[in-house]
Order: sequence, then structure tokens, then C-alpha cells
Amino acid sequence: MAQGFTVWLTGLSGAGKSTIADELARQLRERGIGVEVLDGDVVRTNLSKGLGFSKEDRDTNIRRIAFVAQLLTRHGVAVISAAISPYRAVRDEARQMIGNFVEVYVQCPLEELVRRDVKGLYAKALRGEIGNFTGVSDPYEAPEHAEVVVQTDHESVASSVARILAALEAKGYLTPVRQAVEV
Amino acid sequence: MAQGFTVWLTGLSGAGKSTIADELARQLRERGIGVEVLDGDVVRTNLSKGLGFSKEDRDTNIRRIAFVAQLLTRHGVAVISAAISPYRAVRDEARQMIGNFVEVYVQCPLEELVRRDVKGLYAKALRGEIGNFTGVSDPYEAPEHAEVVVQTDHESVASSVARILAALEAKGYLTPVRQAVEV
Repeated sequence: MAQGFTVWLTGLSGAGKSTIADELARQLRERGIGVEVLDGDVVRTNLSKGLGFSKEDRDTNIRRIAFVAQLLTRHGVAVISAAISPYRAVRDEARQMIGNFVEVYVQCPLEELVRRDVKGLYAKALRGEIGNFTGVSDPYEAPEHAEVVVQTDHESVASSVARILAALEAKGYLTPVRQAVEV
Repeated sequence: MAQGFTVWLTGLSGAGKSTIADELARQLRERGIGVEVLDGDVVRTNLSKGLGFSKEDRDTNIRRIAFVAQLLTRHGVAVISAAISPYRAVRDEARQMIGNFVEVYVQCPLEELVRRDVKGLYAKALRGEIGNFTGVSDPYEAPEHAEVVVQTDHESVASSVARILAALEAKGYLTPVRQAVEV
């Protein structure tokens, strides 16, 4: 059985977690690895319907993702979690529970997120029409010891994914792929 | 990767689901198979804290188990669910979702469960001290097309587990173990 691990993406809404998760999943599958992406929305639908966005409910949501990630990880799956997961303490709980864990801080300045605002959520949040909106009216606690920090305002998805793969290889969770030698 | 499947045990509290789950898990692990037991209590703690025992909450709880069982099954894990799961429709949903699915009706007459009453729950339920108690004050819909029916009031755990393993082999989810030939 392959060695399982969890890549835990954390960052604000719109920072690029899902995009990175999907490209990372694609490249891992290309290496013949079984992958499961636990996307924030999918989990909210299937495990956490009825939970809101208070600190307590957010923590409960994240603990459920961690529980499922732990089960999959110990059976050799490469799990990618792509939830905002704003609170440091519960991310650290997830790290302890899961063991083979790489935290990736998907960083993007708020100004840039407000500028992009693909779903129009930041505009609404800034007008006070959405409460408990992370980064605007709700806290986001940046990681202090993330294995990888990707800066999506001035880094390509390909580069971010390459650096996450390198971190997985450095930790021994993933076997390096032999590269063509440049002459 | 091994072929995953889910053995879905259903039956009243105290009928023997956990005992059968544990022995089945032990024998599957002996065959070198990765196993995960999703016990009713463990799931209530980790995925469904806050849910009660109304039909709606029970159905939500079962859907969450099915979601997790589906993820594990498609990554080659042998999943054993051991929740009461009293409602037929949501068990059938689980079957549809998961695909490789064997339903096991863990049957035991109510009189026998009341006689055993290991945790003293039936006595309390019969005195009206516990509401929504399956089989006493809440419905239990017996399976109509279970792959295996085990009768724990007059069948040993070993025999029940052997019959479940035989069903898994018959479905092609499990490779038969070569038996010593009796002469």
C-alpha cells in the first residue's frame, strides 16, 4: 500500500485553494496515486449541513474534515483538503490527528481578492450583507509553521504545485520522479 | 489496489452488530485487507455531534456514514458500518451511492434483547425514560433484500462472520481463501 498523506490548504476565500487542489490532484493521479480532494463546499454539503460560520461551527466542520482525512490517509490515500480553515488551533489538531501532514498557506493580499472578487462575495461582505466573512468580518489566523507558502498574486499555479510536490518528496511521502536531464 | 466494498450491518441496539463487525474486521485483516469499522458511536462523536434521534437526524447521520464509506470504498478499503440505520430508504441510498455493498441484517427478537439488555437501555426505554428508542418507541424497518441475515439469538459469531465472508466471495469482492482439504 502506498503511503498516505494529507495536504492541508488554508487561506482566504478566492485565494486559489480549489485551483491548486485540482492541479495537484491531477499531477498526483498522473503518478498513479489515489487522490481524494475534500473541498470546502462538498464537505459542507455532505458532512456539515446545518453548521454555520461561528467559531464553534467552523471548528466542528474542520474537525470532521480532519476525521475523514485521517481515515483516508491511514489507508494510503493522498488527501487534499481545500477549506478556508481560519483558526490555527484546530489546524494544528488536524496535523496531530493525521500525522503525515503538509500545511500549505495559500496566500493572497486582501486588496487583490477584493479586486478579483470572482463570486462577488467580497463586495457583499464589505457592504455588510454577509456576516462572519473570513478576512473581512471574521478572523483569519495565518499559519506560523506551514511547510509551504504559495503567493497566488505573483506565482503561477504550476509553480505552486511544483513546490508542494517538492515538499512532499522532501518529507518522504512521495517518491521523486526521475526528471529528464538538462544538458 | 484491492477492490473496496462496504459491509452494511443493520439491526436493533444490542443485536450484535459491533461484535460481528469486530470479528469480521479481524478476519479480513488476517487476509491482508485494509479495514475500517465505522461504529455508530464513533460516527456520532466525530461526524454527527449535535444530531438527535428524529427520523431526519437519523437519516442525516446515515448519509454521512455512507459518504465516508463511499470515499473509503473507492480507495480499496473494506468498510464495515455498524449503525442501527433503522430506515430502509436511506440504507438503499447508501447502497446506490457506494456500489460494492453487502447489507447484513443482524436480527434478534426484541424479547431476547430485552432479556439480555447489557446496557440497561431497553428497561429504561420500556419505562419511557428514553424516547425515540428503536424497536420500542421508534420504528425499525427490516431489510427486504439483505444479502445476509444473521440470527444472533441462535447462531454463533463465527458462523455469522463465515456467512458474510462467503457472500463477499460470491459477489467477487473477496478472493476465496484456499481451505485445507478434509479427507
